[in-house]
Amino acid sequence: MSSSRLEAFSDGVIAIIITIMVLEMKVPTGTDWSTLRPLLPIFLSYVMSFVYLGIYWNNHHHMLHLLDRVSGGILWANMHLLFWLSLVPFVTGWMGENHFAARPTAIYGVVLLMAAIAYYILQSAIIRRQGERSLLKRAIGRDLKGKVSPILYTLAIAVTFWNKWFAVSIFILVALMWLIPDRRIESRLGQ
Amino acid sequence: MSSSRLEAFSDGVIAIIITIMVLEMKVPTGTDWSTLRPLLPIFLSYVMSFVYLGIYWNNHHHMLHLLDRVSGGILWANMHLLFWLSLVPFVTGWMGENHFAARPTAIYGVVLLMAAIAYYILQSAIIRRQGERSLLKRAIGRDLKGKVSPILYTLAIAVTFWNKWFAVSIFILVALMWLIPDRRIESRLGQ
Amino acid sequence: MSSSRLEAFSDGVIAIIITIMVLEMKVPTGTDWSTLRPLLPIFLSYVMSFVYLGIYWNNHHHMLHLLDRVSGGILWANMHLLFWLSLVPFVTGWMGENHFAARPTAIYGVVLLMAAIAYYILQSAIIRRQGERSLLKRAIGRDLKGKVSPILYTLAIAVTFWNKWFAVSIFILVALMWLIPDRRIESRLGQ
Amino acid sequence: MSSSRLEAFSDGVIAIIITIMVLEMKVPTGTDWSTLRPLLPIFLSYVMSFVYLGIYWNNHHHMLHLLDRVSGGILWANMHLLFWLSLVPFVTGWMGENHFAARPTAIYGVVLLMAAIAYYILQSAIIRRQGERSLLKRAIGRDLKGKVSPILYTLAIAVTFWNKWFAVSIFILVALMWLIPDRRIESRLGQ
Repeated sequence: MSSSRLEAFSDGVIAIIITIMVLEMKVPTGTDWSTLRPLLPIFLSYVMSFVYLGIYWNNHHHMLHLLDRVSGGILWANMHLLFWLSLVPFVTGWMGENHFAARPTAIYGVVLLMAAIAYYILQSAIIRRQGERSLLKRAIGRDLKGKVSPILYTLAIAVTFWNKWFAVSIFILVALMWLIPDRRIESRLGQ
Repeated sequence: MSSSRLEAFSDGVIAIIITIMVLEMKVPTGTDWSTLRPLLPIFLSYVMSFVYLGIYWNNHHHMLHLLDRVSGGILWANMHLLFWLSLVPFVTGWMGENHFAARPTAIYGVVLLMAAIAYYILQSAIIRRQGERSLLKRAIGRDLKGKVSPILYTLAIAVTFWNKWFAVSIFILVALMWLIPDRRIESRLGQ
Repeated sequence: MSSSRLEAFSDGVIAIIITIMVLEMKVPTGTDWSTLRPLLPIFLSYVMSFVYLGIYWNNHHHMLHLLDRVSGGILWANMHLLFWLSLVPFVTGWMGENHFAARPTAIYGVVLLMAAIAYYILQSAIIRRQGERSLLKRAIGRDLKGKVSPILYTLAIAVTFWNKWFAVSIFILVALMWLIPDRRIESRLGQ
Repeated sequence: MSSSRLEAFSDGVIAIIITIMVLEMKVPTGTDWSTLRPLLPIFLSYVMSFVYLGIYWNNHHHMLHLLDRVSGGILWANMHLLFWLSLVPFVTGWMGENHFAARPTAIYGVVLLMAAIAYYILQSAIIRRQGERSLLKRAIGRDLKGKVSPILYTLAIAVTFWNKWFAVSIFILVALMWLIPDRRIESRLGQ
């Protein structure tokens, strides 16, 4: 199987996940401004998950681009990642509808953590297949972001029951960390 | 990242948005004609949003076509546009279910306005990247429609609380303005 | 715009329509066989619409394949067709949940009729663009099926209030008419 | 019609099926751990169906890859397969919400059985078209898995009313059987 096929399928699944997530924002029955207020936390959690899925789509795409052919192992490592991403709409809705309450926020963190681990497994499977002179290995370098993110997610899950806003801040921090382009890596590839 | 990849992803998201929007039209329980009557405003708002999303898909497609490679800035400007478009089913449903009441109609206008601004930001990012001899810059010319639309949306939002049907008329006017082909621009590109 | 882009977008929309249609079959709350019985007409209407959308996808695909470039008129004729197809899940659900009652079945026929007319408009727009030696014109020949279908749909709508099962039989008949391959047309193209 | 077109459409439909399945997991209203407990069987049935759809996507993709052009028969054999796969979210939700009760689990087995039969029909249609020296025929060899699966599904359906967990175990067994790569077949193709 060529990697372009896997890319197209993954792109499709991520496009659907990102779009059906908005279905969690149920149309309110009244027209008062007050009917929109309970939707605010749902909206904010939607924005956060939208950004996260955008980051995943972007990184996933770049990663598969460095790959020619797909083995069975890589294919299932990819399905494993898509599985955790497919749970994002559910946990986003649960967290948003309960105003970032401790437990739903912790579960949101667990899904982000599992997705990060699934991403790491996929990345490792591709590097292993590419062997010694792996393009992907050179591209990610020390992979600082990839290593720090799971640690931060774990921290966020732990502090949820102490201060939920601290946990949410960590989620925002990790998203920003990935959003800000990493010049060193791009230049390393450009060499 | 090649622009064709971004095009395919955006096409997918817009295709899903345009289709799940119809899910807001809940199947009525009875079979009387009267059970269809409350669906009429929802249907009309669906038609309007369908046309708007069709226009966005069409223009977005033409714009990306003039682009070779995608930078991080363009990618996120595009995600920003998709974000506002993803809210269209929600505001369409809210406006339709409340018979174009003032507040939902104003919010509908806000989402259209934000999408127009997001489109402008994306367009500017592409022109900046293409530099001096930007094909896109030549193609859009003075970009009259692009400049007038946000002004008209703002006007529509303002008049909503005075006369909602006037606001809806403005939305229809803007859609028609984009639907009618602009011969000058096409011929400019064709030269 | 190349026709392949339009094809991909239309394929996406039809794939989503055909799949979200199954969401109308709500999971029943009990586990008795009796809980499945009210789902039977919904299931049967789903099967019928699934076949119809499959036929549209197939024919639509063949038609666009004979086309190189897309004009604005063709693009919007295509959006018009997708609009009516997007209403199929709604009317399928309404017809199925009401056990093929007269009015919903008539409305189902109206949507099929409008889709057939939209298809005819799109077909004519493509033939006009291809001019004298239109490949599509040669391919469809006298277009007997295309001309008979709207007549049969109109008949079905008319008889709905007299005998709904007669109307449903006409829908099945038209579907079968399109399913059975037309040797003459294929051989005409093969010459 | 080229097979790549059919592949893209099927990929799209499977991507949508796999993703809307998660919509069956309704966001609970409370934040207690106890609100998650009733979701556990739904989650487990989701995992199982996710793996099954992943297997179908994978195998389907490999099969179509060995094909050049699509006949009308192959096209409708493929639509037939997609039809049964489109019922997977419904039966998954019904089985999960009823804690793998006998009847829903039996129906789940019926849908898996019908999908397996549809897959076999599609496979046979392709082999027939490819004729004597069919690549696909050589690739599947004796097609042991393809022949054993329907038998195991039938067994599972039969034992559901005696012991539902035994039936579920058979579903898991069949999934594992397909997940574990079959070295002989890959090497036969590699020769």
